[in-house]
Amino acid sequence: MNAAIVGWGHTPFGRHDHLSFEDLVRTAAREALADAGLAGKDVDAVWLGHFNAGLVPDGFCSSMILSADEGLRFKPATRCENACASGSAALYSALDAVRSGRVRIALVVGAEKMTSLDGPGVTRALSAASYQKEEAGISFPEVFARYARAYAARYSDPREAMARIAVKNHANAADNPLAQLRRPLDLEFCLVPSDKNPMIADPLKKTDCSLVSDGAAAVVVVADDLAKDFRRAVGFRASAQVNDLLPLSKKDLPAFEGPREAFRQAYAAAGVTVADIDFAEVHDCFTIAELLTVEAMGLCALGEGPALVKDGAIGRGGRLPINLSGGLKAKGHPVGATGVSMHVIVARQLVGEAGAMQLPGAELGLAFNMGGGAVASYVSILEPLKV
Amino acid sequence: MNAAIVGWGHTPFGRHDHLSFEDLVRTAAREALADAGLAGKDVDAVWLGHFNAGLVPDGFCSSMILSADEGLRFKPATRCENACASGSAALYSALDAVRSGRVRIALVVGAEKMTSLDGPGVTRALSAASYQKEEAGISFPEVFARYARAYAARYSDPREAMARIAVKNHANAADNPLAQLRRPLDLEFCLVPSDKNPMIADPLKKTDCSLVSDGAAAVVVVADDLAKDFRRAVGFRASAQVNDLLPLSKKDLPAFEGPREAFRQAYAAAGVTVADIDFAEVHDCFTIAELLTVEAMGLCALGEGPALVKDGAIGRGGRLPINLSGGLKAKGHPVGATGVSMHVIVARQLVGEAGAMQLPGAELGLAFNMGGGAVASYVSILEPLKV
Repeated sequence: MNAAIVGWGHTPFGRHDHLSFEDLVRTAAREALADAGLAGKDVDAVWLGHFNAGLVPDGFCSSMILSADEGLRFKPATRCENACASGSAALYSALDAVRSGRVRIALVVGAEKMTSLDGPGVTRALSAASYQKEEAGISFPEVFARYARAYAARYSDPREAMARIAVKNHANAADNPLAQLRRPLDLEFCLVPSDKNPMIADPLKKTDCSLVSDGAAAVVVVADDLAKDFRRAVGFRASAQVNDLLPLSKKDLPAFEGPREAFRQAYAAAGVTVADIDFAEVHDCFTIAELLTVEAMGLCALGEGPALVKDGAIGRGGRLPINLSGGLKAKGHPVGATGVSMHVIVARQLVGEAGAMQLPGAELGLAFNMGGGAVASYVSILEPLKV
Repeated sequence: MNAAIVGWGHTPFGRHDHLSFEDLVRTAAREALADAGLAGKDVDAVWLGHFNAGLVPDGFCSSMILSADEGLRFKPATRCENACASGSAALYSALDAVRSGRVRIALVVGAEKMTSLDGPGVTRALSAASYQKEEAGISFPEVFARYARAYAARYSDPREAMARIAVKNHANAADNPLAQLRRPLDLEFCLVPSDKNPMIADPLKKTDCSLVSDGAAAVVVVADDLAKDFRRAVGFRASAQVNDLLPLSKKDLPAFEGPREAFRQAYAAAGVTVADIDFAEVHDCFTIAELLTVEAMGLCALGEGPALVKDGAIGRGGRLPINLSGGLKAKGHPVGATGVSMHVIVARQLVGEAGAMQLPGAELGLAFNMGGGAVASYVSILEPLKV
């Protein structure tokens, strides 16, 4: 038994002053059920991906999904958390349940509300995704600044490549009506620190950082023998999860070992190489993360990412278009929603429903969602199913 | 494919000033692996049950388990949360993974460190297990005080039964060396409010409330075709999870509907009635919860729990001994650990390794772990497997 995605919901990402966390959860859940043509009573179990760490006061949230539809009462509901990969943690738990046969129809929601805290509050909350014992008091941008400095020390200065990634992802977001920032960024603006683009954690400038966002995304996942009952379905050719050690000091930072191992496992399970992948949504929480991902996924050798980025290989029309949605950088990054959002975006591309983002003829899509500094790595390889 | 528990670890519950949250996780994990005769490399995936809500600064904790054994690096690690049922949330996610065939050997840890916060800090943290929108500002004891008052309004004053439950659980804890409080309580002391037993939330006095605890518990869960490779194994005859709506206002409080439905599903799946169960560990976060559970599990009709308790039916030697470990009331209640701890205690009883707690000839044991005010309900029915 394998699992298939047969419906989805996705709120706009951005600032939602008038929607509570619960409103966001409910909105995405209802949209996904409606998209799949299902009612709450049809669902066997629900999962919520949610990071929290004090971002909202709601500490017991799995059952909030039940309020989306009265038919959901008494259904099992579970919250899963793996920092910024919490959405994938929820989705992968649903995959296990479907593959075990216990659950035939699952509803998975990922959600986060971040803008109700001020900047320092968000920084404090996100720092919980780093290893407190070793990294207490350092911000999450500083975690990735260490990756960038380690990359520079071993290979070359990554700043120009990081700026190009920011420019690409902002350009892509113009095609995504659900994206938080749809205005283009200029390469020069991204390259040079300025009052409007200050240094956050050297060498990461503001334009190297993803956004603080509210938002939710949801998918309906079913046993694939049910896929024929839905108007379209997207299957999992592979789903690989790898967790690495928490302390940065125990890892080879530029090698991005955890993500690399997750890509290796996913390709092996799918029987493909990176050359078979038509497009990818990857976890650009910081531009340096997308650069390291390009290398970890095997698009080029270690240290060669900057040249590949400069050649346009990961732009629309390139060898492997990455983050056609705008990525976390411009689509937005409501932490718990991100992993689910990636799967929604990939599924929409694969069934020709990606609107202006659409890549013609895409047959194999990849989602890479990451928690912490390469701590939790989820790689899904998705394909459309005949229904 | 079904799942079996083949090893366990359990720290003493109580105040552990010299052990961090991570220390507790690691201690229980190592103990469970050693108990099962396994090394980290043998494990396919790990799960962590952890509530947090600010109890410790560690927001990204699933990968902490990996530090227990270097062979665990790169294994998938997932945190699951369902408030005070977070331990069972983690365990049940592992059950799905094992039953799906993806995972052959799973390690599940539940852990919480609560005593590093002061009393008001713990109260604030635990209030996140209630529904903020409706119950903001009310303490968690007040949530269960509402159950007690609703019970009194519909049936009869539950205070004497609550006091008897406290006395029973404290007496039982004397036989459990891992319990936090092993001193007996006097019925009179529990019945009458006093300086030493003040009213917390009318009618709940201090002796009606479970403890604030540090602790961790762990189990190794394997596919049951592997059970023969271990020196003893305990199988899941049933595992049922039910989530109910969050707002108290939408529920019939004395009927304890969510737990009742979970018991119904578990009995049906196991093909048993409550009369077949030899003993149970149940979620006495407050004494009123154990009283309501006795009725919800079908030991007697609604409203008849107090008479049953008075008759000694749930004491050692009664029809269905409940909480021979001392329960949350006296064993302690490190929130994320509790669900895992219950399964450890039940498993130990079933294989004759419960020490002074041992109930002779126990063949079918039940664990009931609950999150929030009857929001998340997990019922497991366990039996020893021939190995």
